[in-house]
Amino acid sequence: MSDKPASLDIIPVAGVRWGTAYAGIKSSASSSAVDDLALMEFAPGSHVAGVFTQNAFSAAPVKLAQGRLRDRLGESLNQSLYLLINSGNANAGTGAAGFAAAEQSCGAIAASIDCNADQVLPFSTGVIGQLLPVELIASATSALWGSMDDSAAAWLRAARAIMTTDTVPKAFSRTVEIDNTVLTLSGICKGAGMIKPNMATMLAYVACDAAIDQNHLAVLLKSAVEQSFNRITVDGDTSTNDACMLGATGFAGVTVSPEHPQWLDFQSALNGLFVDLCTAIIRDAEGATKFITLEVNGGKDSDECLNVAYSVAESPLVKTAFFASDANWGRILAAIGRSGLQDLAVDQIEIYLDNLLICCDGGAAPDYSEPAAMKIMSQSDITVVINLHRGDAQERVWTSDLSLDYVRINADYRT
Amino acid sequence: MSDKPASLDIIPVAGVRWGTAYAGIKSSASSSAVDDLALMEFAPGSHVAGVFTQNAFSAAPVKLAQGRLRDRLGESLNQSLYLLINSGNANAGTGAAGFAAAEQSCGAIAASIDCNADQVLPFSTGVIGQLLPVELIASATSALWGSMDDSAAAWLRAARAIMTTDTVPKAFSRTVEIDNTVLTLSGICKGAGMIKPNMATMLAYVACDAAIDQNHLAVLLKSAVEQSFNRITVDGDTSTNDACMLGATGFAGVTVSPEHPQWLDFQSALNGLFVDLCTAIIRDAEGATKFITLEVNGGKDSDECLNVAYSVAESPLVKTAFFASDANWGRILAAIGRSGLQDLAVDQIEIYLDNLLICCDGGAAPDYSEPAAMKIMSQSDITVVINLHRGDAQERVWTSDLSLDYVRINADYRT
Repeated sequence: MSDKPASLDIIPVAGVRWGTAYAGIKSSASSSAVDDLALMEFAPGSHVAGVFTQNAFSAAPVKLAQGRLRDRLGESLNQSLYLLINSGNANAGTGAAGFAAAEQSCGAIAASIDCNADQVLPFSTGVIGQLLPVELIASATSALWGSMDDSAAAWLRAARAIMTTDTVPKAFSRTVEIDNTVLTLSGICKGAGMIKPNMATMLAYVACDAAIDQNHLAVLLKSAVEQSFNRITVDGDTSTNDACMLGATGFAGVTVSPEHPQWLDFQSALNGLFVDLCTAIIRDAEGATKFITLEVNGGKDSDECLNVAYSVAESPLVKTAFFASDANWGRILAAIGRSGLQDLAVDQIEIYLDNLLICCDGGAAPDYSEPAAMKIMSQSDITVVINLHRGDAQERVWTSDLSLDYVRINADYRT
Repeated sequence: MSDKPASLDIIPVAGVRWGTAYAGIKSSASSSAVDDLALMEFAPGSHVAGVFTQNAFSAAPVKLAQGRLRDRLGESLNQSLYLLINSGNANAGTGAAGFAAAEQSCGAIAASIDCNADQVLPFSTGVIGQLLPVELIASATSALWGSMDDSAAAWLRAARAIMTTDTVPKAFSRTVEIDNTVLTLSGICKGAGMIKPNMATMLAYVACDAAIDQNHLAVLLKSAVEQSFNRITVDGDTSTNDACMLGATGFAGVTVSPEHPQWLDFQSALNGLFVDLCTAIIRDAEGATKFITLEVNGGKDSDECLNVAYSVAESPLVKTAFFASDANWGRILAAIGRSGLQDLAVDQIEIYLDNLLICCDGGAAPDYSEPAAMKIMSQSDITVVINLHRGDAQERVWTSDLSLDYVRINADYRT
């Protein structure tokens, strides 16, 4: 839908392999056998960090993966680590039986590849409230293990296997030269609806070939997520299954740490990759026809900028106006007005569509021109800039419009 | 859309007259001349209280009406009080020019009926960001004044004149016998979208013929609104123009106060009328096919019950599941989980559709039956009961589903 296609020129990361297989979870009723299982392998010596959903009803696989990751925090892996991902079933809202199913899935993989079950971290995405069909996963383990591969094609197969309502696979790479060595950072993610990550995203898997200490990796991940996956919303619905994993294999022979003179270069490349991944989710948002960037400037602090940004980004009326390419800026103004900021001086607020000032002094800008505003509203990429003029804080959030197809997709999702 | 039609058997209230007229604000481009002006008159001796939107971008008429009401607080009216309402233009986001336009509209009416401008309180509803066409209102003042009438038909004409995207007029009456006298309470309201009132509603005008002291009237109004208009949401969007007015004419010759032994009877009748009015807004919500009552019990306090209720009521995914009559209770569970409650023990939560237990122990109820759940989901009126089992607080919120027509209506609204 946007001019910027999801880049599929992914570069494999040394020390990482992917396998995929068809288990029949996603499309048991469908005639085409679409892969719905993926297995990511980090070679021994890697460090891996993760962030997970804050939803109180976090899914069974989230709890299990989080616990197993915590148990091995600090130690570098002397064995391989495996991330087992299925699409088509979220294994959320499944109580104790769901937790057992997550454990059994990991056990089935571990038995097949002869490792310990706690070397396998489970991830699930799909319909909530239905028990994970462990037997389907168990019957696909040898096919999964047999397909393990360190190629770019394997990364792409994995990006496809984890899709649910996504219409395109999402896979990106960046490179950065450190100590005269070109390091590779690559990631895949999925997500199109139930998107308002809170400390994590739907599902994202990122790896690099630098060597990074466990604590530094966790800091890098948290900081990157805060500026990317924690700044997107499709529908305000935080998922039960969000997880974002970042691994560093060390295979490039370069160690990166905050003491390194090129630390910021590395962090910038990583943050850029995360923004590529999270904005790909918004560009592929359920039913989306528009990609909208909300920049809120001049706030007293980050929180109030985010309040305003999300109040606008999640307003069904603002989102339908974007869908209609209607420069109905009164809806933006109303959403700002209800964002709950104390002592908001509305006469000082400026609202821009791209570079066009549309609102100031509590009303339409003197030079406001409806045709100029409509021209911008009809673009597929639109930036709304809101200047509150009451401080120095600023924040940026990405969102999509609310279309007829969003309702159609979500009214049909289970049927 | 619901079995319960908007009652149009309205009983006029002695001491109140209504006039309506066509000014061409709402339907200037339309061939049919639909009334878009209404004037409510309270006879001398009445007391009138009001609550208004908390949106920081409150509209010019809201500011003017609020100021004029404050100026006369405490004094009973020795002259008539007039409420001038136009539909088709909200006069919001119009800066200083909008405030002048609101003043000029009141001035035009005052000149026509030979009263002071500050006896006229303005109210506007419709498109945001366009200047109110005062000349159209001024040219309709004599028709408006000439139509003043104390009949039931006049109340109904007013209920129609204030409509925007409403599909039905909303007018209700209740009676209560106090001191062997039958008192009449009647009200009209409008609203179908941009509905999440905060201390008020879109527009509601209620009158009774009891005599009630100004302070008691304000308390009655605040309490009634808190249990009615402040408990509904269509899209989470708090309007810039919400206002709810309550007047007591005293024409029945009965004085009601907290000291009166039948005070609770009177308050109960008033609260019932407010619930009739606010639920009529939800039943007529833009594109709605379902009327949904959310009851949250067992919370630690009212706030956390409301957090859970609104998290569910405003979830686009929950709302589209209701539209699809899909018993996708995982979406309800996910919305509860993201509502931000501290230390939420999800295993203790029970979720019911009407009387059917669908979720407990963190998963589907043991006796859960999809066909039974689907049968309830296909009803036009559905109650969701969520028991948090961590306290004694409870709250009730009403909402609608999110349909294809909601998007169509709001994508087409200005065009």
